[in-house]
This record gives sequence, C-alpha cells and structure tokens, in this order.
Amino acid sequence: MIIIMHKSAGEADITHVEKILSNQGIHSERLIGEKQTVVGIIGASHGIDISAFTSLPGVQEVVRVNSPIKLASRGAHPEDTVITFSDGTRIGGDAPSVVIAGPCSVESEDQLRRTAELIRKNGVRFLRGGAFKPRTSPYSFQGLGFDGLELLKKVSEEFGLFIVTEVMEPAHAPRVAEFADIVQVGARNMQNFPLLRQLGNINKPVLLKRGPASTIEEWLLAAEYILSGGNDQVILCERGIRTFEPALRYTLDLSAVPTIKQLSHLPIIVDPSHATGKREVVSSMSRAALAAGSDGIIVEVHPDPLRALSDGAQALTFDMFEEMMSELVRIGDAIDRPVLVESFNRGKSEVRSPMSEVRKIV
Amino acid sequence: MIIIMHKSAGEADITHVEKILSNQGIHSERLIGEKQTVVGIIGASHGIDISAFTSLPGVQEVVRVNSPIKLASRGAHPEDTVITFSDGTRIGGDAPSVVIAGPCSVESEDQLRRTAELIRKNGVRFLRGGAFKPRTSPYSFQGLGFDGLELLKKVSEEFGLFIVTEVMEPAHAPRVAEFADIVQVGARNMQNFPLLRQLGNINKPVLLKRGPASTIEEWLLAAEYILSGGNDQVILCERGIRTFEPALRYTLDLSAVPTIKQLSHLPIIVDPSHATGKREVVSSMSRAALAAGSDGIIVEVHPDPLRALSDGAQALTFDMFEEMMSELVRIGDAIDRPVLVESFNRGKSEVRSPMSEVRKIV
Amino acid sequence: MIIIMHKSAGEADITHVEKILSNQGIHSERLIGEKQTVVGIIGASHGIDISAFTSLPGVQEVVRVNSPIKLASRGAHPEDTVITFSDGTRIGGDAPSVVIAGPCSVESEDQLRRTAELIRKNGVRFLRGGAFKPRTSPYSFQGLGFDGLELLKKVSEEFGLFIVTEVMEPAHAPRVAEFADIVQVGARNMQNFPLLRQLGNINKPVLLKRGPASTIEEWLLAAEYILSGGNDQVILCERGIRTFEPALRYTLDLSAVPTIKQLSHLPIIVDPSHATGKREVVSSMSRAALAAGSDGIIVEVHPDPLRALSDGAQALTFDMFEEMMSELVRIGDAIDRPVLVESFNRGKSEVRSPMSEVRKIV
Amino acid sequence: MIIIMHKSAGEADITHVEKILSNQGIHSERLIGEKQTVVGIIGASHGIDISAFTSLPGVQEVVRVNSPIKLASRGAHPEDTVITFSDGTRIGGDAPSVVIAGPCSVESEDQLRRTAELIRKNGVRFLRGGAFKPRTSPYSFQGLGFDGLELLKKVSEEFGLFIVTEVMEPAHAPRVAEFADIVQVGARNMQNFPLLRQLGNINKPVLLKRGPASTIEEWLLAAEYILSGGNDQVILCERGIRTFEPALRYTLDLSAVPTIKQLSHLPIIVDPSHATGKREVVSSMSRAALAAGSDGIIVEVHPDPLRALSDGAQALTFDMFEEMMSELVRIGDAIDRPVLVESFNRGKSEVRSPMSEVRKIV
Repeated sequence: MIIIMHKSAGEADITHVEKILSNQGIHSERLIGEKQTVVGIIGASHGIDISAFTSLPGVQEVVRVNSPIKLASRGAHPEDTVITFSDGTRIGGDAPSVVIAGPCSVESEDQLRRTAELIRKNGVRFLRGGAFKPRTSPYSFQGLGFDGLELLKKVSEEFGLFIVTEVMEPAHAPRVAEFADIVQVGARNMQNFPLLRQLGNINKPVLLKRGPASTIEEWLLAAEYILSGGNDQVILCERGIRTFEPALRYTLDLSAVPTIKQLSHLPIIVDPSHATGKREVVSSMSRAALAAGSDGIIVEVHPDPLRALSDGAQALTFDMFEEMMSELVRIGDAIDRPVLVESFNRGKSEVRSPMSEVRKIV
Repeated sequence: MIIIMHKSAGEADITHVEKILSNQGIHSERLIGEKQTVVGIIGASHGIDISAFTSLPGVQEVVRVNSPIKLASRGAHPEDTVITFSDGTRIGGDAPSVVIAGPCSVESEDQLRRTAELIRKNGVRFLRGGAFKPRTSPYSFQGLGFDGLELLKKVSEEFGLFIVTEVMEPAHAPRVAEFADIVQVGARNMQNFPLLRQLGNINKPVLLKRGPASTIEEWLLAAEYILSGGNDQVILCERGIRTFEPALRYTLDLSAVPTIKQLSHLPIIVDPSHATGKREVVSSMSRAALAAGSDGIIVEVHPDPLRALSDGAQALTFDMFEEMMSELVRIGDAIDRPVLVESFNRGKSEVRSPMSEVRKIV
Repeated sequence: MIIIMHKSAGEADITHVEKILSNQGIHSERLIGEKQTVVGIIGASHGIDISAFTSLPGVQEVVRVNSPIKLASRGAHPEDTVITFSDGTRIGGDAPSVVIAGPCSVESEDQLRRTAELIRKNGVRFLRGGAFKPRTSPYSFQGLGFDGLELLKKVSEEFGLFIVTEVMEPAHAPRVAEFADIVQVGARNMQNFPLLRQLGNINKPVLLKRGPASTIEEWLLAAEYILSGGNDQVILCERGIRTFEPALRYTLDLSAVPTIKQLSHLPIIVDPSHATGKREVVSSMSRAALAAGSDGIIVEVHPDPLRALSDGAQALTFDMFEEMMSELVRIGDAIDRPVLVESFNRGKSEVRSPMSEVRKIV
Repeated sequence: MIIIMHKSAGEADITHVEKILSNQGIHSERLIGEKQTVVGIIGASHGIDISAFTSLPGVQEVVRVNSPIKLASRGAHPEDTVITFSDGTRIGGDAPSVVIAGPCSVESEDQLRRTAELIRKNGVRFLRGGAFKPRTSPYSFQGLGFDGLELLKKVSEEFGLFIVTEVMEPAHAPRVAEFADIVQVGARNMQNFPLLRQLGNINKPVLLKRGPASTIEEWLLAAEYILSGGNDQVILCERGIRTFEPALRYTLDLSAVPTIKQLSHLPIIVDPSHATGKREVVSSMSRAALAAGSDGIIVEVHPDPLRALSDGAQALTFDMFEEMMSELVRIGDAIDRPVLVESFNRGKSEVRSPMSEVRKIV
C-alpha cells in the first residue's frame, strides 16, 4: 500500500498517517519528492481497509500495491491449470481447444437426443443443457429441475458426452455435482458467495461465468472463493458485459481472453451465444474467440430454435452448427492450437483427438 | 407483440409468420403501410418467446407491447404501496420519508450501541447493520453471522429501533426474518432467484437493492418474484450502477426515483453510501435523493470509520451524520414531504412524528 | 510517478528502470518493501509518457502522482471562480443559483418571444436557444444558423435576458461570441480541441458540457484547454452519461456535482432536459441538482412541445415550468443558497435579486 | 411509426393522437388488440419528431419502424462498397483484408522511415501516422502539423505506401486531403458534424472511427453525413467503446463487425491498438478481428516504443509486428479471405497480391 500525500499536506498530516499505521503494527517508509511525499507500506498491508485511509487529512490517494488475487494469479501458479476428465480429455494449457454445445434448456428427451447426436457426430465431447434456469421473469420457463438432470445423464451416457449444467443454489450443489462433469455458475450468480463456497467443497470442475457488470478482478476474486475452498478446478467463461450498445444483448469482451491469460493460470472459454443473443453472429464470434486464444467456446444449438422454451434467437440451427465446426477446425490449425474433434462409434467411443478436420462417423 | 416486416419482405414471408402464430393458437392482424407491413398480436402474446421471431425470414424487428411487469406495475396497482410497522410507522405513499442508518457491518456491541444511540437521538427509527456480508474477496471480513443478529436484536430493543439486515442465502431466510424488521437483499443477489422465491414466503418487508448492472425493468421483475410468491411488502433501493466513471465507486442513478414512481407503486429509497463509496459526498446525495422524491435513504455511520472492518471510507462520522439530518429535515419541509424524526425517552418511546426539526431528547 | 515492480522483478529490472529514467534526466528513489520494490519520481515526471513504462520488464504498474489538471484544479485556485455579467449578475461561488431556460432550437420569433416572456415573468435571466444544432442524423432540422442568433439578440434585448447559445466550429467562434453572453460547447464537442482552443481566445464565458462518455478528469482537461488559452471563464455542465439503462436517454450523474466541487474551482450547472430526454422527470432532477449543490440548472421549455422541431419530449410546458420554478425557490431556501429570481418591468429592468419567491410583475 | 396506447387509454386519447397526426397530414390506421390499441403510420413518418408523441395522454410507447439510416444501409445498397486506390489496391467486399500500420504520431523523418521500411518489407501498403493529434491534455504533444504531412508524403513515396492520416477541423480538410490517401476522422470527432460535412465534399476515402460512447446506429448516421454530402467512400473503424472494465483502455467491440456487415455495405476495419492501449494484447485482437470478418486492421508500430511521444504502451515493437503479420496471413488463409501482402523492390513496386505468406524482398 502506498499513501500519496497532497502537495499541501503538512508534516503533521504525514506524521498522523504514520502514527495510525504504527498503532496497527505496520511499518512504513517515507519517500520525499520535490512536491509531494509518499508513505509506503509494501507487503504487509494485508487486512488493512485501504479505503479508510483516503479520508485522512492531507491524503491525496491510496494505491494498493499487492493484488488481492492470490491462488488464481499467474504469479502464484506460473504453469497453466489443465483440467483432466475421466478418459483423459483435457481443458486448458496446451490441450486442444474444446467446444461445449447443446440447448439452452433441457426441454424433452427427444430435443436433447437429437442435439446430442448432432454434436457428437461433429466430434464434440461436452453437452451443455440447463435443468435449473435463472430467468429474469418469474413467468418464464424455469427449467425441468432434477428431471432435466436425469435426461442429461441418460442421453450423455448414450453418446459418450460430458455434461455441463448449471447449479443455482448452495443446497443443490452436492446433488447437481453428481450429475455434472462440469458444474456451471451462471453470470448472475458470479458473486453468490455461499454458492461459491459450496463449490469449493466439491470434486468437480466449475465453469464460472463472468457477471455482466463484473470487472476482471472481481471475476478472479470470485474464482478465489472456489480455489480457497479447496477446489482447484475452475474454468472461467467470458459471456459479455453490460454496455450502452443496444444492437446485441451484451458486448462480448474478447480482450478479456489475453488479459486473463496474463493475470491467471486458469483456463478461459467464451460464450458467444449469451453474449450476443443472436445466432447470426455466433459463428463469427466463435472464430474470433479461438483466434484470440481462448481454451474453448460454449454455444447453444437447438433442433428447432423457433420453438425453444428459452433464448431461441441465439440458438444455432443444426446446419449453422456444422458449418461453424468446420470453420473452427481451420482456425485451430491456423493458430497451431487444434480444436478437439473426436470420431465416435455408438457404444464404442473411439478416441482420436485432436484431429484437424471434422469426421462424421455415427 | 408487433412484428415489423422488412421493406423487402414478400407475401410469402408475411404468410409464414402468420402461420407460425396461428399454429401456436395466436390470432394476428396485418397493418399494411406504404412501405412496410406489420403483423400485430396484441394482448395474447403471453408465453411466446419473442426473441425467436426476430430470426424469421423477412422480419425486421419484434416489438413487445405488453410489459412483462405485472404485480409490481403501477397499472396493476394504481395506489402507492405503504409498508406499515408494528407501531404504525410507515414507509411509502404519503408517509414521511425515512432515514435508515447504521454501520456497514455489525462489529461489536459497543460499536453498535454507540451508533444506535446516535441515530435514535437524531430521531431515526431504522437501524441497519450487516451480520452476513457479501464481500468481493474471500479474505475480507465476512460478518459475525447469527451472533451479529443477536447483537442487533439486543441493541435495537434497547433503543426502540427497527432492524434492517441482509440475508444472503435461501436457507437462512426464515431465521434472518425472525430478527429483521426489514430483510435486505443485496445488490449482488438481486437476481438470486431461489433467494427471491424464499422471500416471497416470509411475512416481513423486503428491501430489494438494485443490481449494479440491472436495468429498471430487470429490477422490477426481481420484485415480481417476491410479489408473485405472496409477499407484497417490497421496498426498492437504488444504490448506484456500474459505469465507466472511476471517480466514485458506482454512479448513483437518481433519475431511477421518478422513473420507478411512474412505473410502479412500490416505495423506493436511495443508498448514497454504497453508490459513492465516499463519505464526503453522502450528504449531498442524500439531500438530492429526498429532493428527487424518494421515500427515504439508507446511509452508513460509524463511531470510528478509520477502524471499520468494511467500507470505512463511506461511513459518515457522527458529526457529519447530525449535520446531514438537519439538512434533510429542511429539504423535507421544502418539498412538503417531511422526514420522519421522532423524539425518544429511553424505555418510553414517545412517538411524535413527523416533526420538522430534529429534537435530541435522550 | 511511482513505478511498482513485480514481486518477481530482479535487481537488473530495477536498475534498468532507473537507468532509463536517469537517461531522461529524471531523479528517482527506491522504496524497498518486504516483497516488492517501488521506484518513485515525485514532482518531476511532467512530460513523461507514463504508459510506456508499464511494459518494461519487471514493472507491475505505474501510478501517476501528479494530477494532469492544473489551472482547473482546486489546488491551483482554492477560491471558487465566479463569473460576473454586465449588470452584476453572477454565477458560481456563493452567488444565487441560476436557471437558464428556453427552447432546444430557435424556431421562430413568435416561439422565442413567448418563451422569453414566460421565463422572464418567472424571474429567469438567462435564455437558452440553439441556432446551430448538432443533430445525430443529417436529415434532422439543423437550426436557423445566424438568423437564429439575430432572433435571440432581438428577443433577449426586449426582455433583458442574457443569451446562452452553442457554437459548433472553430471558424464560427468569434461571431457567435458577439451574440452570446455565454457560449455553449455541446457534449459531442467536449473534445473538439481546435474549437476549445478558439474559445480560449474569446472574452466570453464558456458553458462546457460533459461528453456522454467522458470521465470527470477528461472533462476538466477539456476545460484546461480553454483556461490555458487565456479564458478563465468556464462553467461546467453535467448533462448525463452513457450507460446501459434504457429507461431514459442518458443517466444523469449528479454525484459529479460534489465531486467537481472538491476537484475544481469552476462553477457547475446541471442539464436535466438532455440527460433524461423526458419532461416528466425534469422537475424532479432539477430539484435534486440544486439540493446536491449545483450552481444552477439549464432546462428546455417550449410553448408547444408537440410541435417542437427538436427534442420535443424533453421540453417542459409553460405550466410545468412555472411549477418547477416555485419548487426550486423553496429548495434554494432550504439549503441557504437562494435561486436567482428577478422581477421585471418591461423597458425598466428592476433588479432585486436574490429573492426567495417567484414574483410575476410583467 | 407505431404508437402503442396504454391499456387504460380511452377512445378520446386514441382520437386525440389520430387528430394530431391528421393535422400534420399523416394517415394512420388503428390495430385493435384484446387489451391495447395501436395506431400505425407506416412509411410516411419521415420528418416527425417521434419523441414528442411519447408524452401524449394515453400513449405507452412510440416505436420507430423505418430506420433513420438510408445511404449507409445494406437495404439501400445490397452490394458491398469497395474502395479502389490508384494502383488497383482495394478495401472491402471480397478484396483481401488490409493491414494499416505505422506510428501513432509522426515524430521525425528517421522514425517514420524506419517504420515505413519495416511495414513495406512485410508487405503492408498503408502507412498510418498522425500529424494533427487530438490529445486529452493541452500539455501533451500535439503533433507536427503540416510539417508532419510533408514527412508522410516524402517517406510514403519512397516506399510506395498509401497515407492514412487524421484531420481535426473543417478548415484543414481540403489541404489534409491533398496529402492523404485515406483521411481519418478520430473517435472524438465522430459527431463533429461540420467536419463530416466538409468530408462529404472531398474526393478521398474517409476512415470514420467509432466514438467511444456511440451506438452502431449513431456511427452509421455519422457516415450518413459524409455519404449524403456526395462522398461515397467511407470506411468504418471499430476502436473500442467506453465500459466499466478498467483492465484496458477501452473495450473492443468485435461483435460490431458482423453487426455492421448485416446493417451496412460499408467496409469495416478494427483498431486494436487504441482499443486496448496495450501492445501485449494487440496481436491477439488483430487475429480475432480478421477471424470475425473485418476488412482489415489498423495498428501502431514504433521503432522505439519507450521513447514514443504518444501512446507508447500500445505500439508494437518491430519484432512483435513481424510475428503478428505471419499470424494474420495464416488466419486469412483459414477463413478464405487472404491478407494483402505485397512484395516490394525499392523504386520498382512489384505488385503481387494477394499472397498467402509474408515475403520480404526489399
């Protein structure tokens, strides 16, 4: 912590600041400049409420030196975190980038099976689908709940897929974690701290979406809740921030990808479906996400978007999805970071990853 | 719902839209303009996912006509909602505007008693204090929990104060509601839907803070969760939104006050402490909030802000608080909406409200 | 300037930074903390491009210590700037707060005269009206140009009013300044630097509106362009910033008022008409602006808002204006900062200001 | 235009609206729904101030049907605009995507020549460099002015480069246009309407940067000023918008690329240097921009960024630039839209474009 004194601050002001610090057992040093004095406490300011010092007489500004991010920071953990799944599939580091795909909500077995078949045919290994849906209005479809999780389990086993699904409240966390291969925290729950603490206790990877009004620092601090609870498997997900631009639902902040890569060792993926709310721009933003260096994307696809019970406008049609997959494979090759696509024989998952083109073998 | 077709849309496009509507049992009408055609479904579009229609061929734009806000809307309930407390004290409508004050966090019995004594001396009836604290960092002070609630209860009874305190998770709601006279939902939990649903079942007023990235419509829809659960005692609280301006913590959106008054019958109060994060501007924004027509304010005050365990920079000192109170009373008189200030004799609460000046009688 | 080194920075990194500084003739000092080292250059960093240092090896962050704001800062000029007009009317400091009112655009002599008569009858001394209109679309009404200025001159002389009108391009500045008593710089031109430089050369007060995406610091730096050119008569005007909230046109940032009062000596007024775009909330926000401590407000009023050629939705009707004026006078009294209202006899301006109530004497 | 009446609106309210319309010579039709009535005027609402109707009694909302964008809209001009330069080089449509590169400011002949040599060696044809610099502070380096333009001319002729440079005021436009092959309008001048009008009269392509608080619609309306003046050569440039995220200077809105492609026929390029302000993320965002479908990028490169007179932190070093170029060529191949790279023999420009790899032949 560095306390910058005003030009007009007198010796009494400076001494006052130093005394308050020393009363709290903190050693400080003065740096006397031409016009201004600085009081520095470096390395020992942990636990001090910085903001309080800003209102002391003669203080111009208080600057935090130590980042509040610890376990999630690149400094604390220079190598990339890589999440490994049961069959060796990996997310993060130098692993192939992944595609997570599926409907916004689990609506029916037929809807889910058709979607699962499509994505598996295109080499995708991760099936997304919401059973518990956080909806802005209480009158909107709220999800099938645990019945939806049962459907996810049944269909994912049939096609050899990993399940990515959302948990909305702390009390549900253990049970949702039994079904999910990746437990998702939605954007609106990014700072639901009791939920984050629960997820620090489970033994499943957590996909932590960025809150639409959250800074990157706040996002990493939310990850810090999970990590400090003992769960080191966190995947970040950029999904758009709130801005003044009304053309799309949110503004996808793709520059968060290289920024996170600098600040943290955690994998980061991108959700262009929720960020834009518009299927026509999803492929373009998916390509951009991979080109920017993300560890994967998560997109929505639906057999009949017009009849989707939630977010129909953003779901890709099957044709659009297939076209996008082949584009992504080419982008992956161009940046020497292939996209994970695996061939599949029903009942006998034949893993050959990564490949540089989409093989359809079902 | 109104579907505006592109200039270039052909008859087939229009018929296609109409057919999809009629397949869903929805009657529509055409409005044929000089250059464009409009397909209107008015009043019966409940339950349709509007967004899905935007991607049909020939569709330019889909406009929602019915507001999704029902129980919270002024249209559904033209008279102002007034919340009445055990001794007849009221919030909302034409009741005097209220001041809710106290420390950010309950830290100790001494801290709480000194603050309670101050605010009661100044005629305030509502004591705020956090026992469960949502903190951005897992390493910050997280509150005293239920011990803090016990302290709030003890001190509030001593001074004849109502308790305003936050609940963070659904499972805690019933027990927190036993202690609280007003149960607060923090800004980060505005869209914690399981929590909102729980609060629809309790019999205590809920103070619903606006999320920092939430539109006014989303905020009213969050209230709708509580109202539709059966609890009609919701008080809205504007506490600043996230913008690009770094000078203060958030940007206080005071124009939300008259906007809410037009759209809704619910009371609205303003929290300048969290919005600005800086005690030096709290009085100014409190005066502005009352002048703008809010039903009250909620502010932080602390006997020793420099030693506060959370948000010290925004807590008013006792002197600042007393000065602010007398300013607010004058603003109240100027707008013919007095501020609630009540004299107090320890052990014998003598209610004489509203008065036009602060009487200190303890 | 303070350069905070990473924990991992080595001696070579620190020496490298110091060498670059000394090569540029800058003296620096080290502050060695427990975990990190800081290199401080205080007071002499003028002219260094701070941003460049952020990318040196081992540098964590560069913190600017000296504010770039000089002439506009409260530190440089502790007393409030007060602008004085020909007849002694003042804006700023402890002068009564002022109301500036009139139509968005000058449309016709009749429209202008009726408006001028109304505002003068209500004690207002400043007539606003745009002759050059910055319009988002090239197909919208662009103003009457110099003919509009002639109308403003004719009507303002008749009623003893000062003229507030906008200049849009550097080449027009001298001629507009002949007509105007206050030359307005619109929000979109806040960083039109050639225009600001021109206005540094004129001898008329400049009303500098805040750009909708401009921070308070950028706004003060725009003022700095005018001040450093030699014109010390700058009045700041908060008129709403761009945020995600769609309910109103912009979000009025009233907390800019006390913030500016701390940082700068310049007067600040508030424009609730452009900020909100909605006449129904203008009175409420005008009251709030005065209660927050602004030096005045600028509002739009029109004899027939429905037929206004620009921004009709935000113009007050005559009735609304009169009601607002009496409310403002009461707010002024409540905060011991009266509103300037002056009685007027046509042809014999009888100045009696400030008064505490609106007198209508025409 | 569609006027949606409140549920509570009576026949008198509806008739009132219709009468006002018919008084203005506008024909309207009623659409009577179950709960609400809609009054539609389609196609003839040009010139009406829509906003004014929102405040009529009984009116809930007014919806604009016709987009205000005309000449810039895809509807008016379905084929992509392609800008062609003297030697056949093209921007837009299916032309290879272009790289525009150079220093932020022209500082010296040596600085410019070294940069020009580098970019030409890497196949780039467009040299950027500011001679007139819009700087936030009046105390920052303001550019070399016309001397800088002379340097640009000299060096660009030597290396066979096209010049991209900024104009800041209307009076300079004709002279800057003599030097420039593309005249740039900076972000802060996007709504400098007198400047835009001047540029409607010149015979050079205009690079129109998006204002940091401007919506896509406002940006296209700014282009409309230039187009409607008679200059149909406009290139849009996304360069970041103002958001709450402090990690980088602005938030690059890459989803603007596919959005513009849908709404308009104009070429769009991306400026990751100004958007992010940080060289470490420029390559990543450049790759993403091409992958998203932009018609090119504009980046800053400097022989000695640490000594740059402006924006040093965002300038690429020569090594970083060369690496980025080879990455971009690979992205271009992956999306079947090659990047324009041309070999060059000093004095004998040997045009062989597009190629799929960077050839260095100087």
